[in-house]
Amino acid sequence: MAELLKDQVFMAFTTHAAIVTLKLLLMGPLTGYFRITRKSFVNAEDVPGKTAEDKKKMLKPNEDVERVRRCHQNDLENIIPFVFISLLYTLTAPPLSTALIHFRIFTVSRFCHTISYILALPQPSRGLSYVAGVGATVSMGVQVLLKVLVL
Amino acid sequence: MAELLKDQVFMAFTTHAAIVTLKLLLMGPLTGYFRITRKSFVNAEDVPGKTAEDKKKMLKPNEDVERVRRCHQNDLENIIPFVFISLLYTLTAPPLSTALIHFRIFTVSRFCHTISYILALPQPSRGLSYVAGVGATVSMGVQVLLKVLVL
Amino acid sequence: MAELLKDQVFMAFTTHAAIVTLKLLLMGPLTGYFRITRKSFVNAEDVPGKTAEDKKKMLKPNEDVERVRRCHQNDLENIIPFVFISLLYTLTAPPLSTALIHFRIFTVSRFCHTISYILALPQPSRGLSYVAGVGATVSMGVQVLLKVLVL
Repeated sequence: MAELLKDQVFMAFTTHAAIVTLKLLLMGPLTGYFRITRKSFVNAEDVPGKTAEDKKKMLKPNEDVERVRRCHQNDLENIIPFVFISLLYTLTAPPLSTALIHFRIFTVSRFCHTISYILALPQPSRGLSYVAGVGATVSMGVQVLLKVLVL
Repeated sequence: MAELLKDQVFMAFTTHAAIVTLKLLLMGPLTGYFRITRKSFVNAEDVPGKTAEDKKKMLKPNEDVERVRRCHQNDLENIIPFVFISLLYTLTAPPLSTALIHFRIFTVSRFCHTISYILALPQPSRGLSYVAGVGATVSMGVQVLLKVLVL
Repeated sequence: MAELLKDQVFMAFTTHAAIVTLKLLLMGPLTGYFRITRKSFVNAEDVPGKTAEDKKKMLKPNEDVERVRRCHQNDLENIIPFVFISLLYTLTAPPLSTALIHFRIFTVSRFCHTISYILALPQPSRGLSYVAGVGATVSMGVQVLLKVLVL
């Protein structure tokens, strides 16, 4: 195990995987923040209001909250495949420079994606960030399959 | 590989990761159980009713089913980052006692979270379970990044 | 690391994990394809229409798009636990033939599941594919816990 952490590609993988995973995890508290500031909840027991009418009003969906939730979902759908594929890719011992290009494109693309999504920037800002991330993951996935194929 | 499984921290990681992952997976059949008992389906081909009116009635969302689905989603959003981060954390060779504290807090917190969510227990029971789980994962993630940083 | 890739079970795991993960990832572009052909979008900035009325019409949900999204979600809920559990299972050094049976059942079951879901084939086609996949994962998970248990 200790040997793994002497490998530069593995350390780069660990760094990028930890950063994007923490980023994914922190979309939860961000959703909480939007729920509280926009006063839009989904579980009756979470609503802070006092009267029944107040409570009912705060159980309606809010577009800002839904936007953060869609962004969170998109992170789940892209960051998790990236971590899986880039771990397998790292184990195929690629050159450090090639690996770093893939990891950096992905990490940067996901932060750009989140900013474009939350701020509702005009397209194609979000679309391009999404495509860059998918492209980096698919490129690594194909390289893994070309090296290791036992069906 | 066989060596990995002689490492106590790795065995503890494997145990906790397997438990929470199986728990996550079994939210699927639980949703199925609620769909059948509450008679609330989402795909037309799944509805067991005979008349068209019966079928239409069973295609409406049900609050109990939606609650299980939100709980499942919250598990996805928290358990997956935990498995990623705790694997990387395990590879940094932390002391067994420290690792076990993190793993146990997380595993217990997710079971408490599910119970609070499904039974709609009053807050802050669900909130505190959620925060404990996120805290354990973030704590490990920061320790990983402090040890291994190749951007 | 290089040693891992001389292990036949690990190579089989890598192959199947890469295939199902890429399949999961490509549900994203498939959703995009359905959104465009069905003219059903969720973010105002994505709608290609010119007049305000056109745009509003294209922000309504479409059953085909929702179906792909549910299929994507079901993939997330099943493929990710499979990759976690099958990695841990691979590390317990199972016989290659037993491991291949689990991996193949899972991979085939998920492709059958997607086809049944998207084409809305009559039940139990989708139900059986789902159960086969969960069964393969649970079977490996139980074997992992029986070999390695440090709570």
